[in-house]
Amino acid sequence: MTEIADIEKKDLLYKGKAKEMFTTNDPDIMWVHYMDQVTAFNGKKKVQMQGKGQTNCEISSLIFTDLAKHGIENHFIKQLDSNNQLVKRVKIIPLETVVRNFASGSFEKRYGVKHLMKFEKPVTEFFYKSDELDDPFINDFDAEALNIATEAQMQKIREIALKVNDRLKEIFNDMDVDLVDFKVEFGITNDGQLLLADEISPDSCRLVDRKTKKSLDKDVFRKGLGALVPVYKELLGRLEKVEDVK
Amino acid sequence: MTEIADIEKKDLLYKGKAKEMFTTNDPDIMWVHYMDQVTAFNGKKKVQMQGKGQTNCEISSLIFTDLAKHGIENHFIKQLDSNNQLVKRVKIIPLETVVRNFASGSFEKRYGVKHLMKFEKPVTEFFYKSDELDDPFINDFDAEALNIATEAQMQKIREIALKVNDRLKEIFNDMDVDLVDFKVEFGITNDGQLLLADEISPDSCRLVDRKTKKSLDKDVFRKGLGALVPVYKELLGRLEKVEDVK
Ligand SMILES: Nc1ncnc2c1ncn2[C@@H]1O[C@H](COP(=O)(O)OP(=O)(O)O)[C@@H](O)[C@H]1O
Ligand SMILES: Nc1ncnc2c1ncn2[C@@H]1O[C@H](COP(=O)(O)OP(=O)(O)O)[C@@H](O)[C@H]1O
Ligand SMILES: [Mg+2]
Ligand SMILES: [Mg+2]
Repeated sequence: MTEIADIEKKDLLYKGKAKEMFTTNDPDIMWVHYMDQVTAFNGKKKVQMQGKGQTNCEISSLIFTDLAKHGIENHFIKQLDSNNQLVKRVKIIPLETVVRNFASGSFEKRYGVKHLMKFEKPVTEFFYKSDELDDPFINDFDAEALNIATEAQMQKIREIALKVNDRLKEIFNDMDVDLVDFKVEFGITNDGQLLLADEISPDSCRLVDRKTKKSLDKDVFRKGLGALVPVYKELLGRLEKVEDVK
Repeated sequence: MTEIADIEKKDLLYKGKAKEMFTTNDPDIMWVHYMDQVTAFNGKKKVQMQGKGQTNCEISSLIFTDLAKHGIENHFIKQLDSNNQLVKRVKIIPLETVVRNFASGSFEKRYGVKHLMKFEKPVTEFFYKSDELDDPFINDFDAEALNIATEAQMQKIREIALKVNDRLKEIFNDMDVDLVDFKVEFGITNDGQLLLADEISPDSCRLVDRKTKKSLDKDVFRKGLGALVPVYKELLGRLEKVEDVK
């Protein structure tokens, strides 16, 4: 492995809705640039926002560092500066893994249940990551039939996702925030390891302030509830105060 | 248990889209009347059709009798006449269990795959039986969280549904017909047994003639491809010729 100090950014491999992924001079390492851009509804709503990339990059870096400390291996290597990270390169499994502690979003809509109904135990769902198909809800049997993932991978993914949920709930608890739900992505490293990847940030979590009941996540943007970056900064501020995380 | 000959039809308990369910003088037995009515798109398309109830009643009776002979217990007790059956009363678990051998219908649409793409092994899916919600696709974790079924019930249901698929494929094979997919329902008897229920008919199966590639099922109605009852009668005629079934 190349020394971290010697890593150089190479080609833009993929420009997504929130991040740019660059190759580096090490085939096992990717350079992630968090953009000052936020999108919703599969890219149909899109806005540039100064400071958004930075807060997400910092929040995601803090969380991935914490998860690793708590035994949950992940792709994060190092935060380089305000908007850039180095991560282990994976081949992403095109499944968005959702863990829900309270009903919200598509769950609430699909099943017509009460907003923020609390689940007795966390619920997991997979969505097939496909912009053209609008990320359809998928089950294990369909995903296997479509060669998206193996049954063993999906079992392992669920297991890790539930561990992430346990630790995230502890962190957000210390911030006086309810973790409603979140989305994670997994991939396979060049040497075949299944690894938690992508980001964990207010873009990919639903978070509700326990006192004010206000959203501290991308729902502020989805629902047009006000300026997003101050909310993300407030969240980052609280996160930095959590013993163990800071 | 009341002697079958002494069973009397009592109150209409439920009038569905294709059948009327009556109580009888035996609390463990229901009287099913197959109506001359066909619906599609969650009841939005609805037509009266003479002879339709009879063919479905006969097809379903033949298939349930055959399944029982092949070790798959089910609610069917007896066909009374052209349009009426006695069945064991169950409390229906509100899940439509779908088994797919080839891609069609909502699968094809949801994942954008080729019509009639063959699966390496059969795929199972659950839909939450709810007219108001339009029968949404559901996974095991959601169904458990919503108290629709337990994990053990869903495992058992899948197991039985796949056995049904194995036997149905044998039957339709002898009829020169491909079983594309089908839907079954399960319920719990008064003494707590999980039991295959409802109907198995061209209303609930997708069937394709191997020679002509024509649909021999409700898709004829869904897609407006011509008269439905003659197609169902053709299917019944072939079914009655299958050694073992007749
Ligand atoms: N460690 C990694 N290696 C390779 N690709 C990754 C890694 N982590 C995340 N990705 C992928 O990089 C892209 C990140 O950019 P993003 O803006 O989030 O894209 P998208 O619009 O597809 O969500 C996503 O497609 C994500 O799956
Ligand atoms: N053995 C049974 N005991 C009680 N209810 C049953 C049994 N078998 C099927 N049912 C239910 O009876 C109804 C049958 O009528 P149908 O016209 O198919 O209704 P639907 O429009 O709900 O599909 C369905 O709701 C089905 O779940
Ligand atoms: Mg993304
Ligand atoms: Mg029905």
